[in-house]
Amino acid sequence: MGEAVKLAVIPGDGIGPEVVGEALRVLAAVTEGTDLVFEQTRFSLGAQRYLETGDVLTDDDLAAIKGHDAILLGAVGGVPGDPRLVGANIERGLLLRLRFELDHYVNLRPSVLYPGVASPLADPGDVDFVVVREGTEGPYVGNGGAIRAGTPHEVANEVSVNTAYGVERVVRYAFAAASARPRKRLTLVHKTNVLVFAGSLWKRTVDAVAAEYPEVTVDYLHVDAATIFLVTDPARFDVIVTDNLFGDILTDLAGAISGGIGLAASGNINPDGRFPSMFEPVHGSAPDIAGTGIADPTAAILSIALLLDHLGRAEVASKVREAVTADVAERGDAKRSTSEVGDAIVARIGA
Amino acid sequence: MGEAVKLAVIPGDGIGPEVVGEALRVLAAVTEGTDLVFEQTRFSLGAQRYLETGDVLTDDDLAAIKGHDAILLGAVGGVPGDPRLVGANIERGLLLRLRFELDHYVNLRPSVLYPGVASPLADPGDVDFVVVREGTEGPYVGNGGAIRAGTPHEVANEVSVNTAYGVERVVRYAFAAASARPRKRLTLVHKTNVLVFAGSLWKRTVDAVAAEYPEVTVDYLHVDAATIFLVTDPARFDVIVTDNLFGDILTDLAGAISGGIGLAASGNINPDGRFPSMFEPVHGSAPDIAGTGIADPTAAILSIALLLDHLGRAEVASKVREAVTADVAERGDAKRSTSEVGDAIVARIGA
Ligand SMILES: CC(C)[C@H](C(=O)O)[C@@H](O)C(=O)O
Ligand SMILES: CC(C)[C@H](C(=O)O)[C@@H](O)C(=O)O
Repeated sequence: MGEAVKLAVIPGDGIGPEVVGEALRVLAAVTEGTDLVFEQTRFSLGAQRYLETGDVLTDDDLAAIKGHDAILLGAVGGVPGDPRLVGANIERGLLLRLRFELDHYVNLRPSVLYPGVASPLADPGDVDFVVVREGTEGPYVGNGGAIRAGTPHEVANEVSVNTAYGVERVVRYAFAAASARPRKRLTLVHKTNVLVFAGSLWKRTVDAVAAEYPEVTVDYLHVDAATIFLVTDPARFDVIVTDNLFGDILTDLAGAISGGIGLAASGNINPDGRFPSMFEPVHGSAPDIAGTGIADPTAAILSIALLLDHLGRAEVASKVREAVTADVAERGDAKRSTSEVGDAIVARIGA
Repeated sequence: MGEAVKLAVIPGDGIGPEVVGEALRVLAAVTEGTDLVFEQTRFSLGAQRYLETGDVLTDDDLAAIKGHDAILLGAVGGVPGDPRLVGANIERGLLLRLRFELDHYVNLRPSVLYPGVASPLADPGDVDFVVVREGTEGPYVGNGGAIRAGTPHEVANEVSVNTAYGVERVVRYAFAAASARPRKRLTLVHKTNVLVFAGSLWKRTVDAVAAEYPEVTVDYLHVDAATIFLVTDPARFDVIVTDNLFGDILTDLAGAISGGIGLAASGNINPDGRFPSMFEPVHGSAPDIAGTGIADPTAAILSIALLLDHLGRAEVASKVREAVTADVAERGDAKRSTSEVGDAIVARIGA
C-alpha cells in the first residue's frame, strides 16, 4: 500500500454509530502491525443531520466523499412515521443517491450460515452463496411519476430501466465471481415470463457471457421460484445474479435464513475504481433499539472483511471472518451487548 | 341456484389435466344431493393447443369463456426451453390475458399450514393468512419496450402502471376480507421508500379506506422485510394486500412455508361479477412429472373450495376443506398417486 487508505465513515442514525464503532475497533485490531493504514474522515449524514440542518446530501458532501478510497456506512433513516421526516426520504436522497452517484453497480451480498448459528429453517443444509445485485438500474432509477395525484383519476407509474451496458458489466462481475468459487455455479434470477423486455436483455446477456466461462454452470429461476428454493434448498445456490429490486428482496430473505439480518454484510462496489466503494450492514438504523447497547455489530464487522477484500487484502479479511466464525459458533443464545461482541472479536484477532 | 352453473374447464398442459380430473371428481362428490348443478365446457388451451394449431387464445375462445359463470384452470405452459415455444409466451398470452381480459383484479391466495403438514420452517407457528394480490395492474401490464435491442446500446424498460381506480378496489376488497376474519388485521406490503409514486398511491389509499374500517388493525411492511417475517414469524400475518409482482413473489414463498406449492390454491376474482372468475392451483404444469401419476391434486381440489366460496356456498366449500384437512393430517410422508389422493378426499366427502 504505502499510502494511507482514505476511509470516509458515515455512522448515520440509530444503531449505525454503535455498530460502526465496533467495526472500526476490529479494523484497527486486524491491521495493527500490517502496512495497512487508514486515514478516517467522519461524515455526519442521515436523518439526524437532516433534522438539524435540512440537508440530506449536499454537493460538497458528495465531492468530499468522492475524494476517499472507500466508505464505511452504518445505517441511515429516522424513526418510521416521524412527521418531521415526511417528504425527506433519507433512503432515496442519501443511501440510493450514494449508490447511484458513485456508480456502485455491484451490490455484493454474501449469505453464509456459520456453524452454530440458528436458522429459522428446520434443515438449512450448507448455506454459502453470494448475491450479485445490480445497483444502478432497474426499478430503482427513480424514473416514476404520477398524474392527477390525489384524485380518483390518479395514475402512478414506475419505470424499470435496464441497459445492455449496465446489465453486461454486472453479469461479467458475477461470472468472474462464480468462476473463482469452488462450485462455479451461477443462477440468473428474473421474471422473464412477465417482464419480457428487461428479462430478455438479462437472459441474452447471461447466455452471451456464459460462452466465455465454459467452466461455470448456469441456470435460471423466476424470482418467485427462487424464494421457494431459498427456504427449501438454499444450499443449491452459489452465485445469484439479479436486478436491483429482486436482489433487494432475495437478500433480506437470504439474510433471514442464514442467521438473521444481524449477520448480513454488503459491499456497494464500483469495480472500475473510479469512485469509492461503500461497505455497510444490510440492516437498517433500528431506532427502536438505538442507545440500548444491544445492537449486534457483527454485520458491520463482516462489512470490514468485504472492505479488506476490496482493497486486495484477502488474507487480512480472512482474519476478520475467522474471528467472527469462532465467535458466532460460541455465542449461542447469550445476550451480549454491542461492545461485548466487539470485545470478543477483537480479542480473538489479537490472540 | 335453480339454474346450472356454467363452468369453463381449462385443463391445460402437463399435470394440469391430471389434477383437474381429481378436482372435478371432488366437485361432483361434494355437490351431489345439493341444488348445485354444473354444466361444464372444456377448453383445449395451452402449449399443446398452440403446438397443434398455432393459437394461444383466439377471440372466439375468449368470447365463449366469457359466456360462463366461472372457470377452473389446471396449469398451462410447455417444457421449459422447448424451441417450438420460443416467442409464444403461453403465460402472458393465455394466463395473464385471461386475468386481464376478465378483469380479475383480486388474486386471492390463502396460506394455511394444515395440522400435520411439514413446513421447511423449524417453528412455523399457526400459519393462516391470505394474500390479496392485485391482478390487473403493476409491472404486469405489459407496457415495456426496448430500443436498439441486440446491440450494446439496448435499453429495455418495464413500466408499472398503478391507478387510483385499480388500487382502491382491491384495497377495499382486502379490508372487507380482513374485517370478516377473526383477527381483523391487514398488512400493506410495498416498497414505498423506493417506488415512491406507486408506493404513495398504495399507502394513501390504504390510509383512506382504513378510516372506514376502524375495527381493522393496519400495518405496513416493505416487501424485503415481509419476506423476513414470512420465515421468522408467519403467524403475524392475517390479510396481506399488495401489488401484482410483490404478490407473485410473496405467495410462492407463502406456499413454500405452508407445506409446499402442492397445497396452494388461488382464485382470480372479478368481484363485480361482470366476468367469470377463475380458480387454479398456484403451481405450474410441471412437465417433468406429467404422466407419471404422482402430481398432487390437493391445490386444484382446494381451488374448488374457493370456487364454491365465490358462488356463495361457504358451507359446501367447508366440506371440501374439512376433507382435505383430514386427509393431509393423515397423509404423512406416504407417496400416493394423483388418483389415490382424489379417492381419499372423495371418500371422506361421501362418508
Ligand atoms: C433502504 C432501502 C432503500 C435499501 C434498498 O432497497 O436497497 C435497503 O433495503 C437495502 O437493501 O439496502
Ligand atoms: C405463470 C406466471 C405468469 C404467473 C404470475 O407471475 O402471475 C404465476 O407465477 C402465478 O403466480 O400465477
